[in-house]
Amino acid sequence: MSTTIPAVSTAAATSQVLVTRFQAIRRQSVALCRPLLPEDTVVQPMLDVSPPKWHLAHTTWFWETFLLREYLPGYQLFHPDYAFLFNSYYNSLGSRVNRADRGTISRPPLSDVYAYRTYVDKHMEQLLALQDTLPAAFAEVLELGLQHEQQHQELLATDIKYILSTSPLAPAYQEAPVQRAVAAVPAAAWLPVPGGVHTIGFEGTGFCFDNELARHKVYVDDFELQNRLVTNAEFLEFIEAGGYQNFRYWMGEGWDLVQSQHWTAPLYWIKQDNGWHRFTHHGLVPIELAAPVTHVSFYEADAYAQWRGLRLPSEQEWEIAARHFGATPQGGTFLESSLLDPQPLAPDADPTQCHQLLGDVWEWTYSAYHAYPGYQRAAGALGEYNGKFMVNQLVLRGGSCATPESHIRITYRNFFHADKRWQFTGIRLAR
Amino acid sequence: MSTTIPAVSTAAATSQVLVTRFQAIRRQSVALCRPLLPEDTVVQPMLDVSPPKWHLAHTTWFWETFLLREYLPGYQLFHPDYAFLFNSYYNSLGSRVNRADRGTISRPPLSDVYAYRTYVDKHMEQLLALQDTLPAAFAEVLELGLQHEQQHQELLATDIKYILSTSPLAPAYQEAPVQRAVAAVPAAAWLPVPGGVHTIGFEGTGFCFDNELARHKVYVDDFELQNRLVTNAEFLEFIEAGGYQNFRYWMGEGWDLVQSQHWTAPLYWIKQDNGWHRFTHHGLVPIELAAPVTHVSFYEADAYAQWRGLRLPSEQEWEIAARHFGATPQGGTFLESSLLDPQPLAPDADPTQCHQLLGDVWEWTYSAYHAYPGYQRAAGALGEYNGKFMVNQLVLRGGSCATPESHIRITYRNFFHADKRWQFTGIRLAR
Amino acid sequence: MSTTIPAVSTAAATSQVLVTRFQAIRRQSVALCRPLLPEDTVVQPMLDVSPPKWHLAHTTWFWETFLLREYLPGYQLFHPDYAFLFNSYYNSLGSRVNRADRGTISRPPLSDVYAYRTYVDKHMEQLLALQDTLPAAFAEVLELGLQHEQQHQELLATDIKYILSTSPLAPAYQEAPVQRAVAAVPAAAWLPVPGGVHTIGFEGTGFCFDNELARHKVYVDDFELQNRLVTNAEFLEFIEAGGYQNFRYWMGEGWDLVQSQHWTAPLYWIKQDNGWHRFTHHGLVPIELAAPVTHVSFYEADAYAQWRGLRLPSEQEWEIAARHFGATPQGGTFLESSLLDPQPLAPDADPTQCHQLLGDVWEWTYSAYHAYPGYQRAAGALGEYNGKFMVNQLVLRGGSCATPESHIRITYRNFFHADKRWQFTGIRLAR
Amino acid sequence: MSTTIPAVSTAAATSQVLVTRFQAIRRQSVALCRPLLPEDTVVQPMLDVSPPKWHLAHTTWFWETFLLREYLPGYQLFHPDYAFLFNSYYNSLGSRVNRADRGTISRPPLSDVYAYRTYVDKHMEQLLALQDTLPAAFAEVLELGLQHEQQHQELLATDIKYILSTSPLAPAYQEAPVQRAVAAVPAAAWLPVPGGVHTIGFEGTGFCFDNELARHKVYVDDFELQNRLVTNAEFLEFIEAGGYQNFRYWMGEGWDLVQSQHWTAPLYWIKQDNGWHRFTHHGLVPIELAAPVTHVSFYEADAYAQWRGLRLPSEQEWEIAARHFGATPQGGTFLESSLLDPQPLAPDADPTQCHQLLGDVWEWTYSAYHAYPGYQRAAGALGEYNGKFMVNQLVLRGGSCATPESHIRITYRNFFHADKRWQFTGIRLAR
Repeated sequence: MSTTIPAVSTAAATSQVLVTRFQAIRRQSVALCRPLLPEDTVVQPMLDVSPPKWHLAHTTWFWETFLLREYLPGYQLFHPDYAFLFNSYYNSLGSRVNRADRGTISRPPLSDVYAYRTYVDKHMEQLLALQDTLPAAFAEVLELGLQHEQQHQELLATDIKYILSTSPLAPAYQEAPVQRAVAAVPAAAWLPVPGGVHTIGFEGTGFCFDNELARHKVYVDDFELQNRLVTNAEFLEFIEAGGYQNFRYWMGEGWDLVQSQHWTAPLYWIKQDNGWHRFTHHGLVPIELAAPVTHVSFYEADAYAQWRGLRLPSEQEWEIAARHFGATPQGGTFLESSLLDPQPLAPDADPTQCHQLLGDVWEWTYSAYHAYPGYQRAAGALGEYNGKFMVNQLVLRGGSCATPESHIRITYRNFFHADKRWQFTGIRLAR
Repeated sequence: MSTTIPAVSTAAATSQVLVTRFQAIRRQSVALCRPLLPEDTVVQPMLDVSPPKWHLAHTTWFWETFLLREYLPGYQLFHPDYAFLFNSYYNSLGSRVNRADRGTISRPPLSDVYAYRTYVDKHMEQLLALQDTLPAAFAEVLELGLQHEQQHQELLATDIKYILSTSPLAPAYQEAPVQRAVAAVPAAAWLPVPGGVHTIGFEGTGFCFDNELARHKVYVDDFELQNRLVTNAEFLEFIEAGGYQNFRYWMGEGWDLVQSQHWTAPLYWIKQDNGWHRFTHHGLVPIELAAPVTHVSFYEADAYAQWRGLRLPSEQEWEIAARHFGATPQGGTFLESSLLDPQPLAPDADPTQCHQLLGDVWEWTYSAYHAYPGYQRAAGALGEYNGKFMVNQLVLRGGSCATPESHIRITYRNFFHADKRWQFTGIRLAR
Repeated sequence: MSTTIPAVSTAAATSQVLVTRFQAIRRQSVALCRPLLPEDTVVQPMLDVSPPKWHLAHTTWFWETFLLREYLPGYQLFHPDYAFLFNSYYNSLGSRVNRADRGTISRPPLSDVYAYRTYVDKHMEQLLALQDTLPAAFAEVLELGLQHEQQHQELLATDIKYILSTSPLAPAYQEAPVQRAVAAVPAAAWLPVPGGVHTIGFEGTGFCFDNELARHKVYVDDFELQNRLVTNAEFLEFIEAGGYQNFRYWMGEGWDLVQSQHWTAPLYWIKQDNGWHRFTHHGLVPIELAAPVTHVSFYEADAYAQWRGLRLPSEQEWEIAARHFGATPQGGTFLESSLLDPQPLAPDADPTQCHQLLGDVWEWTYSAYHAYPGYQRAAGALGEYNGKFMVNQLVLRGGSCATPESHIRITYRNFFHADKRWQFTGIRLAR
Repeated sequence: MSTTIPAVSTAAATSQVLVTRFQAIRRQSVALCRPLLPEDTVVQPMLDVSPPKWHLAHTTWFWETFLLREYLPGYQLFHPDYAFLFNSYYNSLGSRVNRADRGTISRPPLSDVYAYRTYVDKHMEQLLALQDTLPAAFAEVLELGLQHEQQHQELLATDIKYILSTSPLAPAYQEAPVQRAVAAVPAAAWLPVPGGVHTIGFEGTGFCFDNELARHKVYVDDFELQNRLVTNAEFLEFIEAGGYQNFRYWMGEGWDLVQSQHWTAPLYWIKQDNGWHRFTHHGLVPIELAAPVTHVSFYEADAYAQWRGLRLPSEQEWEIAARHFGATPQGGTFLESSLLDPQPLAPDADPTQCHQLLGDVWEWTYSAYHAYPGYQRAAGALGEYNGKFMVNQLVLRGGSCATPESHIRITYRNFFHADKRWQFTGIRLAR
């Protein structure tokens, strides 16, 4: 969380505007869970996935812990045990349920978690009415809480997908969208980006996370970026060329995984008699060749690039390019579209423009997720928000079809371990 | 499954009687799940526990697989994937969901499983109407299916207890029963049993499992058995004497577990400020000193006996004694009572009689679960029912408060690994 | 350890006889290690195997701990850390090196361990000279120490085999013996044994382990035993009939192992271009069809019997039969022969006699290793010798080609978990 | 391996000079193992450690595989199985012994490995005599082989230390050196380094590894570096301030390790009655307060810096500073000194100079080990030398007391996972 940059413009954020924004974001979390049955909300089929019930409760716990307990006089906790049950990873806030056990605890049931949400929302609205009397720190944590809930919305979308995928019934979360049929996308074009000393990191008056600061200078050489994402068709060439059987393209630890986990394609791909299929939020469907490839690990993204004789961009290159090309959310696929699947580039897309930088899939970079020069962890429990994860992970940029559009920006740094595949991750090539 | 002993008396088992019995047993499984929420029915907090939803479906799969597919002309499967989803351990019947993954599959939901039950029950009633036209093997498998469903009722009761226990909220499955307060039970008395050559194993005209056969002779020396179960008060003496801290009383593999699992008391015991409590089907309650100790592993039962300078009976001794004392279900606590907790012996119980042999808790014996002389595995898939488990486990006798009264008999052989504690297991001493 | 039976006849055991016997047994341990290089004596390629250096030291530690410290006035420990380093499993004697770490500790080196042996032997000879002045307990523990060292000689032989087998070089421990070529053995004959009430357990004036007591009565039905061991040729039929690919013959836990460990033959069998070979103490050699099959687990022995429609004997049957047939070591292969491989039955062996009961291979029985009726653990550290292992293992009878001939008797109970294969274990069928 | 930079100056490297250098480096490996017993050379007490016997053989395998087989006409392999036994991680060269099994294979014994070295050395000298007739690639791989053997010399020194440390006897590898007693070192001074665009990476005519290329520009801000390493005295303050008990200073994955591994001090530190001791190549000795702290993981180095409110340098900063300060090996402690322990800074060291940059301990940087811009993996098996490790590890700079002085340079990039502690790793602070 940024403590130096004002999270919200004081003028604009009247109490009513804030209440409306708060309610909209809170409703969005509930809306995402509406297609689920109670059974879906409690299971945890792998360690990275949290039960939807847990997400709904944990985001609520955040408001209760960091705002209601701090600022609302006389606030009574909804339930004394919920602090233990729904803390995620804050050592500052005491012991908590072991992460691996999140999916074995059936109580409180979903209905109690919804009651918890209602109770906290009601009190939050009381608190928001008092806003003018509260210190500046209140507005900052409020904004952080909204961003935090948006982050969990993306996790809800991807965790739900994983949960439903484990059933042999391949149940659909929603109906298949009526989509434009795109037979093929234009060949990727190389766009040059001038190197030199650039400044990266967040600048401006809105919100940013602390990991986007301090703004600082970097040097990069001239480079070129492909003007669109790698497609399923292109990735299929790698598969069919034996990419998953040849160690030469792989990082050593990636190759170990390919062998021990028997990886032969991206996550959710299944080869059936009549060809490759993918599990999606609308069930099992044939691979759409024109769509961007997704659910690949860093290892797969990197091996694909090696096989092509190319490379992934660094996060510095990505941000410089995004600014250079004036990337905007326009045309990107975000959570708000409800598509929950990256979309093919339009066949008539301008080959001189750089497309799909924001939305659709998170783009793996070949940059370790480390603190920027000048980074300082915040004091208190919220200092655990980002800083303690800044090793052993890689940066992804640009947001995905599960990211709220209002949540993304070109300085945004997402991060995952190199082996993770259950997020909407994809590939853009550089050279 | 017994293939030599007629499972039912042909004369008595008119079609209508059978339908009534079938319906009663099927209803009992559903009744056990009625207090559950859908969330409770899907989780698997440890490998030994199966989700209640799975039990409800698997018992139904049994009828579909072994009877409807075989005998009902034109029967259509409820769903083609259920054979994969709800097979337990029958290699003969193809691949199946990995046991460890039973608790991560949220679909089909509970409501579909109930629809599955209704569908199968309706067709089973059709099939039962045809009974007179069916071969003898039909009646045998029918009986086995009823017994099988009763076995899963006991597992439902104990798995539900474990599932609810994992929540810090300690939710109650049912209200606490209005129970007679028993301050203390009479001192245990030693009852002599004459040794010599005895015959054990099932004899008669009703049903028995194949593992109760062949009936065969054994020799035992004269021995004595305590006339009641070990109580919580007695076991507490072991705890307070440092029993869990002294390797001398323990089997080596048991002592390793005590240390690695940090066992300090039976499963479900929690020490709070005001003393020892137990988690039960009616929530967390203070230890009732007069009640039989339960949820102990063989290791704990054996260590307790060692500490007393006594021993556990063999299964042969147990069966000989039960016959010698004319053990009946009378006075025992069974599933039908809905108490789901072993009950204290009445203070005025006759000290010359042997009590609590049937019901209340399964009594660990110091006998390996091996085939009896003359045992033969049945042909076909049902040959996997018992035979392949006949090594590395120990026999328990007598049934528990979660066993249907109509399911138990003195020749009944239950079996678990020495470390298991989630069943209603207890201790009776011999010398 | 027997505490009730005098371990040695007082009259015969003059001091000099004892010294001679002590020296002979001590020399035998060293002789077994003579072909080894220091490197061979330190490694532990699997948990069950101990480094030969450890065996040499642990057996020495036994004398130091249980006799020299107790009975030799003014005895100085060879090294203060050796009690920690070379304790095996005696909780009574304090902490010790974790079993899994025995093979990672290179110091003390082998030469120090030999110096330790020399030092302890010298003091033991001093102590033996004082024998007449020592209490009866001394003679008992002395005898136990000799038996203990003989047990470790068998482990040395089998552990060395396993250690050498892990090298792709397949190094030979010794030259191949000049052996009679046996083309085929006579067909196995069934010999009847009359049932009834028999008495088993040790009786007499020599030494026995405490687990051979108390002598007690058992009832068995009439049965038949094969008059020789199962051969490689016979076991090969099982392999070639797909025995390792068909779950029907296997215990469930055995079948899990077959699949996870990819078992396709006994331990040490390797299929090469020109057929099956075995690793032996004399290197890699073609399977000798007439020799008894060895290095099979209980699971394999039992599956083989199931496949034949037969069964393994119980330990009671084995002992009754051995006494009935007057089994003697005569004609058996023992450690003293230095062959270290079970030998084929002579082609002209009398078909009316029962052969190979003692020596050659340990015969798996279908009896759990439990305490006999009346068994009592000894007091003190030596009470841990046998009693704490009496669950979850199976009894083997008869000794093997790695057992000292003077160590075996028909009441001897060896015991291993059902999955163990690195001992010289084999199969005799019953029905 | 660099393929673009000539590894050796053709003029200087006459055949005789090369033979002398080859022999000197080969002798050094053997010299390092001279204090060992055969038992020490075969064990592998943890996965990161390789048995010394394996190092001696693997370095020899390198010469045989990459030079003798390629370039010496008529060369006969020493042993056909050694390619399998002593390949480290080259997938290009076929299957190999599982890394975890290196320490369980006692054969070939050490003496055979020495014979292998002699055989290969003799043939290498023949080959070196033919040098003028060989292609340029020969000289490159020759140089790489020498550097490779020097890398394994460092591993030999650190692996031997770990192996000996596992014995409770704390055996000394060598006698304690006669060392200057240093009561205290001067307070650390901050030295400024001007930022801006700098060029880093190898430049010149000697050898470098491929990971030091391509030479490229980077931008850094002005920064300051401490002019010496962190000492044991300083690190002890962190310990005594509860640094190992407070999650706030730690990366999340580091804190998990602290708890699960019970870390309370650097590796090899043991608290005894009279204070902290360290295991060293000369046995267990009291902590020398003035010496640089060593055997810390990245997590500990980073937590220490966090606790001080400071940070670790990036690898770019380190290299820029080293060039800025004109770092030379002068005054550093290297393998050639045989001290095998980092040395305290002289009390009269010039506070305006930057000390201990080369030698003594590897300095953790907060830079991921990634490919430099323009990096290309070499073709063939040697392309696996570095490239496939370029993710999930951190860069260390400067060499240590176990690094050959002729092996280090300021562009040298060493790399380890953040949790590794068995190398001579240490801390230098930046701000």
